[in-house]
Amino acid sequence: MATSTMLATLSTLETPAAIIDLRRMQRNIDRMQQRMSALGVRFRPHVKTSKSTPVTQAQLAAGAQGITVSTLKEARQFFAAGITDILYAVGMVPDKLPQALALRQQGCRLKIITDSADSAASIAAFGRANGEVFEVWIEIDTDGHRSGIKPEDAELLEVAHALQAGGMALGGVLTHAGSSYDVDTPDALTAIAEQERAGCVHAASRLRAAGFVCPGVSVGSTPTALSARSLDGVTEVRAGVYVFFDLVMHNIGVCRLDEIALSVLTTVIGHQRDKGWAIVDAGWMAMSRDRGTQKQTRDFGYGQVCTLDGQVLEGIAFTSANQEHGILSCVAGVSVDIASHLPVGTRLRVLPNHACATGAQHGCYQAFEDDGRVVEWPRFYGW
Amino acid sequence: MATSTMLATLSTLETPAAIIDLRRMQRNIDRMQQRMSALGVRFRPHVKTSKSTPVTQAQLAAGAQGITVSTLKEARQFFAAGITDILYAVGMVPDKLPQALALRQQGCRLKIITDSADSAASIAAFGRANGEVFEVWIEIDTDGHRSGIKPEDAELLEVAHALQAGGMALGGVLTHAGSSYDVDTPDALTAIAEQERAGCVHAASRLRAAGFVCPGVSVGSTPTALSARSLDGVTEVRAGVYVFFDLVMHNIGVCRLDEIALSVLTTVIGHQRDKGWAIVDAGWMAMSRDRGTQKQTRDFGYGQVCTLDGQVLEGIAFTSANQEHGILSCVAGVSVDIASHLPVGTRLRVLPNHACATGAQHGCYQAFEDDGRVVEWPRFYGW
Repeated sequence: MATSTMLATLSTLETPAAIIDLRRMQRNIDRMQQRMSALGVRFRPHVKTSKSTPVTQAQLAAGAQGITVSTLKEARQFFAAGITDILYAVGMVPDKLPQALALRQQGCRLKIITDSADSAASIAAFGRANGEVFEVWIEIDTDGHRSGIKPEDAELLEVAHALQAGGMALGGVLTHAGSSYDVDTPDALTAIAEQERAGCVHAASRLRAAGFVCPGVSVGSTPTALSARSLDGVTEVRAGVYVFFDLVMHNIGVCRLDEIALSVLTTVIGHQRDKGWAIVDAGWMAMSRDRGTQKQTRDFGYGQVCTLDGQVLEGIAFTSANQEHGILSCVAGVSVDIASHLPVGTRLRVLPNHACATGAQHGCYQAFEDDGRVVEWPRFYGW
Repeated sequence: MATSTMLATLSTLETPAAIIDLRRMQRNIDRMQQRMSALGVRFRPHVKTSKSTPVTQAQLAAGAQGITVSTLKEARQFFAAGITDILYAVGMVPDKLPQALALRQQGCRLKIITDSADSAASIAAFGRANGEVFEVWIEIDTDGHRSGIKPEDAELLEVAHALQAGGMALGGVLTHAGSSYDVDTPDALTAIAEQERAGCVHAASRLRAAGFVCPGVSVGSTPTALSARSLDGVTEVRAGVYVFFDLVMHNIGVCRLDEIALSVLTTVIGHQRDKGWAIVDAGWMAMSRDRGTQKQTRDFGYGQVCTLDGQVLEGIAFTSANQEHGILSCVAGVSVDIASHLPVGTRLRVLPNHACATGAQHGCYQAFEDDGRVVEWPRFYGW
């Protein structure tokens, strides 16, 4: 007992802190992996959500094959942790090619992406000058929300040609239907998932019909991965936020509140009794400024307040935030004496609007098991 | 020349990166310090904006006396850097008293704050149990925007009594008129500055009339510090974001665009020609999700795009952001071929909505002098 009293618990951790409910996280990982396996595709999680090696190792242990990253720093960090199959899913520019080359030369099976013939030619020229055959995937735009080449665009073949002529390896085509974040019905989600699949498969077909070898067809976002009925022609799926889920995903309809594995531990530090406010030590620095639920069906303010053991406090809203102050108040129609209900020192947990953004505000996670043990898990940030 | 070519420049830094224009920063520091000196008050900068020792040292070198912090981690870090006069300006709770005690015992002249008789009694009990006389300031609410006791409230005297009876030292009263962020005319700013001053001085007068010694009267925010006509009765002013300024401050009317000292260096990574988009490698992770200008007179999207040498690109808007992608487009009425104007590889600098939030997304600053030299300045984050 002497040693166990030295361990941190949710009651002794300094606040604010980013908390991972490990039971929920593992259930989220298993749910996604089982779905992908049943649909017959490889799963390559996007680790920008956690930027944490223990989280990523849990995803790989469950069956994930390779990872997706959003920065070359993530690639370096996860390669240093022993992961070699890494897709850097942001358009490559010339200034970043030396970093990509260094990773390849160290043995990292880094895959890079492009969506223009000019960039493809730059990659090829740099690769040839340095004796490196980069594995390049072509980014496809299946929903108009960001970057990529439309499946029907003539530039698709020009990019493949620039890569082939330059001696690079075409890894495949990939797409991300980010517009899946803008809908919230099963039918709409299924439709976007099918649009994402069909568009990317069509791009691959065009390349193959033109004589190019296009082994990979990679699609994904958390909402579409959890909504696709068929993944015919797809070889791998990418998704990130599913590992924790968040309130945006809840509003979209792909998780329950009690499946959200990330929360921010906070302490009540004061009140304004006449206004019905409790003030907590989680401001926007701890929650992030992400207000992703603002335009959705239900606006959760800066997060959903829960008790220390994770029960949702339906009557309390997280209405505003300063840098290190959060303001909680009663929702309309609820009348409780908030100062008596949540006295100074009360510990609460807040479910985040957007797990990727909230996690990024914290230097580490505090991961807890059902038995109450809390272990610090590292995460990194920056570029 | 051989050595100078090894130095980073704005043209060689990896992007995205947080850039400090040192000439602008120093001018901002001097402007504020000269104003405070002319008004006859001490100036205690809020270092939550930068969380960077070199920035803070420049403020102290210009004449600042002590610092204000928003977390005990900031207190520990700046105390380790040799700064001893530190005000922790977030309401103290019992769980954080051991950390405050440790700092005091190491020689830090840490000041803590409270806004309730219960919390004051907790501080006093803990202080007496540990043989420590905490210097405690009472937080005053002069504009109803957050925490603090109203100047006329009976609890003001109860708090002072709890501190005195418990053997603690009353350092003074302090307030922060955060509602100054909600106005944008000189008259309104002057009025809020006077309300902030008068309310805090009145609270001090009530304490003194009741027989308490109340040496300090501390007020401040960047807009009120730059707008106050009189600071009669005030002993010190606190302000933070003035050191960098940002687009929110520009909309409020207290800085020009060319006074904003913080920007995010970014690279164009692609285009969607049919939409008139350029895509850059600064997404919300680099800019933060802070959309503080959204409700102001001019909405700057995710930031104001500038050329590499800091000239504002009036016709280009930063319209949306994903985690590592930013989307730039032409503002209404401007018709340029954005792909020709900003080809892949173009470096840009983006002025932030909110310097405190944007800085927090970066592990360090890149500080540059007029001669083009860039030096990495550390910053820290987390709690």
